[in-house]
Amino acid sequence: MAGEDLGKVLDKANLDAILFLSLENIRYLCGFTGSEGVLLVTKQERYFLSDFRYAAQAQKELRGAIFNRYRQKIEGLAKLLKKLRIKRLGFEARAMNYEDFSLLHAKLPRLSLTPLVKEISRLRALKSPEEVGKIRQAVQIASAGFKSILPKLKSGNKEKSIAAMMEMQIIRRGGQRSAFPTIVASGPRAALPHGLASEKVLQKGEMVVIDFGACWDGYHSDETKTIILGEPTKRLRKIYELVHQAQEKAIKIIRPGVSLKKIDQAARETIARAGYGKFFGHGTGHGLGLAVHEEPRISPRATGVAEEGMVFTVEPGIYIPGWGGVRLEDLILVTSTGWEKLTFLPKEIEENIIF
Amino acid sequence: MAGEDLGKVLDKANLDAILFLSLENIRYLCGFTGSEGVLLVTKQERYFLSDFRYAAQAQKELRGAIFNRYRQKIEGLAKLLKKLRIKRLGFEARAMNYEDFSLLHAKLPRLSLTPLVKEISRLRALKSPEEVGKIRQAVQIASAGFKSILPKLKSGNKEKSIAAMMEMQIIRRGGQRSAFPTIVASGPRAALPHGLASEKVLQKGEMVVIDFGACWDGYHSDETKTIILGEPTKRLRKIYELVHQAQEKAIKIIRPGVSLKKIDQAARETIARAGYGKFFGHGTGHGLGLAVHEEPRISPRATGVAEEGMVFTVEPGIYIPGWGGVRLEDLILVTSTGWEKLTFLPKEIEENIIF
Repeated sequence: MAGEDLGKVLDKANLDAILFLSLENIRYLCGFTGSEGVLLVTKQERYFLSDFRYAAQAQKELRGAIFNRYRQKIEGLAKLLKKLRIKRLGFEARAMNYEDFSLLHAKLPRLSLTPLVKEISRLRALKSPEEVGKIRQAVQIASAGFKSILPKLKSGNKEKSIAAMMEMQIIRRGGQRSAFPTIVASGPRAALPHGLASEKVLQKGEMVVIDFGACWDGYHSDETKTIILGEPTKRLRKIYELVHQAQEKAIKIIRPGVSLKKIDQAARETIARAGYGKFFGHGTGHGLGLAVHEEPRISPRATGVAEEGMVFTVEPGIYIPGWGGVRLEDLILVTSTGWEKLTFLPKEIEENIIF
Repeated sequence: MAGEDLGKVLDKANLDAILFLSLENIRYLCGFTGSEGVLLVTKQERYFLSDFRYAAQAQKELRGAIFNRYRQKIEGLAKLLKKLRIKRLGFEARAMNYEDFSLLHAKLPRLSLTPLVKEISRLRALKSPEEVGKIRQAVQIASAGFKSILPKLKSGNKEKSIAAMMEMQIIRRGGQRSAFPTIVASGPRAALPHGLASEKVLQKGEMVVIDFGACWDGYHSDETKTIILGEPTKRLRKIYELVHQAQEKAIKIIRPGVSLKKIDQAARETIARAGYGKFFGHGTGHGLGLAVHEEPRISPRATGVAEEGMVFTVEPGIYIPGWGGVRLEDLILVTSTGWEKLTFLPKEIEENIIF
């Protein structure tokens, strides 16, 4: 599904217009990159509404949308809906807050309001070559940044200063910002799937989970390495290799038509069969683009199949409280015949041991 | 209003519990710093709910709240509400999306759901000394960063590279990240109130609006300087001084009991009387703390009065399409007898001309 298919959604749900409120969908559909506004898509036109602060920027950025300035969002929107005689309005139900919904309903009590979730959830799921190019650029920046901080991954350095160096590298190399707060979780802290960098100091023999990404021109990258500081213990080696195997099994079956659930299962069963199932409590992956987390989800609850142009992470992990953990994450593009890894830093254990 | 006053809200609105969904309120009320979860406040207890990824982190961070793990947010929440026999639930109406609201209502059709907006809008409006200390620290980091990039503010340098240097400085000096994408808007681009740094190169004689801030331990700073590259024209000098005068007039009247609207008026009328009213299209300021924009708002629509412990920006501006603009922004703490500037970089024109 892409922007052009919104006409079908309008027809199928018998709507006069759709209201978009998430900044990612707004950017995707009309090009506006600011932080405030709403987009109204009718059968004939697209209208982007925002306030004074963004008037000039919007007029410069908008592609195929008319700018409309408001003082107060819902008031301005109601005025436009009235003027356009919109009677049946669909809206992005995951992005509209209850308060705005109530205000709009109070202003236009006769307007029919239809919440849309599934109908528009796939809007950004298939990436155009231009979008894939931007994701590649984000990967490039983050990977180069990671390589340049590798010498700092040694005992005695703080998790927080490693994260800070990583984030500075991303900006220095032209990234807009880090895609998300960099995770640096070492030793027992590696058992935290989202272990933000702390004051902890790295120690010899520990594993260090580093989850990092860049944002470039609105698009993100996302990758996780687990670095081992010195000769790994037998247990660490076993768990690392198990996670790596789970990741490879999941990636290898990717091609158009394969169910997303099956991709999750491939990783999950590998880990479960080895007896570590309860230590892998999150989904195997998530789509990524203008948002760091978007459709499709690769999880036991996933529906749908892989399609050419999808970009998602494959990131199994094993987290053992008190001991530590391992997560390996790559970014995958679904191609016409299979898959391509957009991330390229090695995940083999031998390439991730630092003496 | 502070966390302790929630009991009064429960009583007054005749509720059994309040559901918080915004990450800032969750952090404020129970200490959780991650990016996923909800908080349920009953008369007896606080329950923080999140998923597998945050189980360990939540248990470590929570202050005065019980952790509850879910697989799916609304499902897990519904289960807990049922177990606690909650019949009347208030919820943060600006933070709950329509889809979650519908799912919860479908799961528990007999649960009475009361949207809360005004009742809780002032929850974080009065800062404790500890919070003010964190904001001061953020200001310190951002100001030191700004000073160190001053030599780069000269003709020939790109807006984008100045923003990148600023953001690197914030991280290098211990900030978690930039509070928001740094604005660097030079020459005619200074007419964009939210002119994100672009590829434009700074030129001699131009004004450069720089709006920057740091995030430290969850708390933010926010400040705007307008730098002039060389001897200003008469017009630029006049407009700069007018904005500066407007800012000073607004700040000088701040003390507990003064209406927020009046603070806005003090700035707005100064600019309007000089004939530039239509070029100042945004509010005079906004509260700031765990969020960059929060209560109170200082605008023509503001209600309420200044109170000791409030922290907000005072940031009038004049934006003239095609010519450029000037904005000056300081961060003000309302004290028992008046105000204190938390930002300390000079705003006088002579201190902002770089030859």
